[in-house]
Amino acid sequence: MDPDAVSKAFVEHYYSTFDTNRANLGTLYQDASMLTFEGQKFQGAQNIVAKLASLPFEQCKHNISTVDCQPSGPAGGMLVFVSGNLQLAGEQHALKFSQMFHLMPTPQGSFYVFNDIFRLNYA
Amino acid sequence: MDPDAVSKAFVEHYYSTFDTNRANLGTLYQDASMLTFEGQKFQGAQNIVAKLASLPFEQCKHNISTVDCQPSGPAGGMLVFVSGNLQLAGEQHALKFSQMFHLMPTPQGSFYVFNDIFRLNYA
Repeated sequence: MDPDAVSKAFVEHYYSTFDTNRANLGTLYQDASMLTFEGQKFQGAQNIVAKLASLPFEQCKHNISTVDCQPSGPAGGMLVFVSGNLQLAGEQHALKFSQMFHLMPTPQGSFYVFNDIFRLNYA
Repeated sequence: MDPDAVSKAFVEHYYSTFDTNRANLGTLYQDASMLTFEGQKFQGAQNIVAKLASLPFEQCKHNISTVDCQPSGPAGGMLVFVSGNLQLAGEQHALKFSQMFHLMPTPQGSFYVFNDIFRLNYA
């Protein structure tokens, strides 16, 4: 399994789910998962999805600029580092962001998000 | 040991070393360490420091805007996510960047950089 291909597929799946139905992102997290969103910390799939679902915009579109990935160690995890911009419905300017994911393997041969850190890149 | 305090201390040490003597950063990496710098991949302390030392500027100053950190799993590692800007000598505008580090504990009770991903945030 090519790590670059896996991370690209994950990133496409993550943001297309985010842009169509944020509530469905819950399947990508587990109870031990952590999100730091603009400095605010959340733990567990339920709390994380509640935060993402409560963001004060309805429609959005993530456009990805770069995806970098590295293996995170012997446990088979993967670090995925994303930069891009976020276009909100009705807003003229897109918001630039950076986000990192630490993906951990599941017994089923898939991955879940163990760590997730998101920051807008203010000008 | 407070993870936020550790990651802040690491970030201060890393960038002040970078801005004064990049060659000294080698002590923070090991043979298994990885750097992805603007999409280019390097492995091992020696290759990583050679890349950082070869960057085409002499004097620089990193200004840190945000530092986020999360534990990376049972091995005792820490993920540190940094945003900030990089002022090069003689350049009018600072370059915005995002960078993530995966710090792993050493037997001596310190940390080394296992993963390092750096991206400039282009406007």
